[in-house]
Amino acid sequence: MSLIVTGTIGIDSVYTPHGHAEKVLGGSCTYFAAAASFHAPVRIVAAAGGDLPQEHRDVFKKFPGIDTTGLEIRPSSQTFAWGGKYHANMNSRETLYTHLGVLAEEPPKVPAAYRDSKYVFLANSHPAVQLGLLEQVPDHRLAVADTMDLWINTARPELERLLRAVDGLVLNYDEAELLTGKTNTVAAARHILDLGPSFVVVKKGEHGCLFVHRSGRIGALPAYPAETVVDPTGAGDSFAGGMMGYIASRGETEVTFETIRAALAHGTVVASFTIESFSLDRLLKLTAPELHQRYQEFAEMVSV
Amino acid sequence: MSLIVTGTIGIDSVYTPHGHAEKVLGGSCTYFAAAASFHAPVRIVAAAGGDLPQEHRDVFKKFPGIDTTGLEIRPSSQTFAWGGKYHANMNSRETLYTHLGVLAEEPPKVPAAYRDSKYVFLANSHPAVQLGLLEQVPDHRLAVADTMDLWINTARPELERLLRAVDGLVLNYDEAELLTGKTNTVAAARHILDLGPSFVVVKKGEHGCLFVHRSGRIGALPAYPAETVVDPTGAGDSFAGGMMGYIASRGETEVTFETIRAALAHGTVVASFTIESFSLDRLLKLTAPELHQRYQEFAEMVSV
Repeated sequence: MSLIVTGTIGIDSVYTPHGHAEKVLGGSCTYFAAAASFHAPVRIVAAAGGDLPQEHRDVFKKFPGIDTTGLEIRPSSQTFAWGGKYHANMNSRETLYTHLGVLAEEPPKVPAAYRDSKYVFLANSHPAVQLGLLEQVPDHRLAVADTMDLWINTARPELERLLRAVDGLVLNYDEAELLTGKTNTVAAARHILDLGPSFVVVKKGEHGCLFVHRSGRIGALPAYPAETVVDPTGAGDSFAGGMMGYIASRGETEVTFETIRAALAHGTVVASFTIESFSLDRLLKLTAPELHQRYQEFAEMVSV
Repeated sequence: MSLIVTGTIGIDSVYTPHGHAEKVLGGSCTYFAAAASFHAPVRIVAAAGGDLPQEHRDVFKKFPGIDTTGLEIRPSSQTFAWGGKYHANMNSRETLYTHLGVLAEEPPKVPAAYRDSKYVFLANSHPAVQLGLLEQVPDHRLAVADTMDLWINTARPELERLLRAVDGLVLNYDEAELLTGKTNTVAAARHILDLGPSFVVVKKGEHGCLFVHRSGRIGALPAYPAETVVDPTGAGDSFAGGMMGYIASRGETEVTFETIRAALAHGTVVASFTIESFSLDRLLKLTAPELHQRYQEFAEMVSV
């Protein structure tokens, strides 16, 4: 079933203990779409500037499932650019610079051909922008949003409106605490259910994730125990892409607990490939059999 | 099959954001034995002083599976006493005081009636003491040890001898890093396999655990997503108790990957009860059907 993602295209410069990558392709929309495309076709809605190199634009074509109709190139604008540096244990990073570029302009529009999309993922952005994009997909069956501490602190009324409009929310554990004031992650996630969504996925990075479902049921998964971590950038967006790609591939009208649980495992596994290299290098080489094999391996690690 | 544990009996005073408990029963041997007894009979080897209140001694009798033949009461000695305070998020604690008491004396002896024990757990202690105890159980089939940063820093030669003598090691993730110099937990655990054990279990507290097995296979489990955390004291020892109790109940000559994986899930689940109250209060009320039900619930959370 048709999956749409709204998010960023970025030009990233990343320093990690394993090396660095200069002006490589990044952005939430990019990582999400690449990961999702292993499960379902995915339509992207994003803006970039005329400075986006041709080789970066060509990357999208290498994932046959990605539809770039909604990728707006604005010739006289700058692409969002981010520089970051990871510390020795890869669990914390500092931002070296952020150049908003097109992110400071009008958000991209959802093309007419995308308006019938059924599964929507709103990558992290100002919640008013996320809501505006969601309104352009009126017949959606399931909408899931990501958010971050910035909007929790500065745009709470808009965020609360967004939470009433979406079916699912994805956020980090510290953001769940910030949003609810509850230090216990399960209690925080349950509290967010009261704000609107039918399910809440709390990401804990290398410690995996947990989710709560309107039914009262809880799921929890470890991260894939990765031995090769070259660059964690894009892990969260890849995780969301794998999750939503799997959900869209199932095509359910009402997404069940079991489907979300399996979707999070698919997200976990594809993210474990993303972090094995800089940018999309590993996902570009990833084959369906490799993905399937690691999924089976992961299922054996955790299933009791 | 016969399971034996060597460890401490403690008198704990604990302060948490949920309240405090004064001079309650604690210690690694205590939590381990109570948790293990739900799966298999367990023999304890530990020493306490004449100051151990009768009501604390009576606690052991309330777990029908615990054999206290090896509990040495030394009338003129003091029981090990520990005071600790947990911070708001329950993830860190400070030690208020430690009175070694009998721990500074000769270690307890393994009674003759215990020498035929097949499954051995050496709770955290000086590795030379652990080795001395292990030698008193010559016909054991499987020995697993816990350790801590103190011994890694101050008794490495003895610890390395211990690692060559045991089949399994249980330790915290930061201790695995300290022992091996490797920041990646999986790499650290694999490195420890080279030091002797056939399997290594790395505990990550509220983030669950992972284990590596001589076969090369890896397992990972989240913690049970607990909403009620009154006092985390004893969680790690209960986890080990549930794990070893399950392994002993299986009675395998060669412990398989699948058995360890299930054993860690049993450890996870019984530990989730321990932390719901101070001391052994929750384990004292725990019924087999409750334990079974939460195990099923946990299996559903994680199995994909």
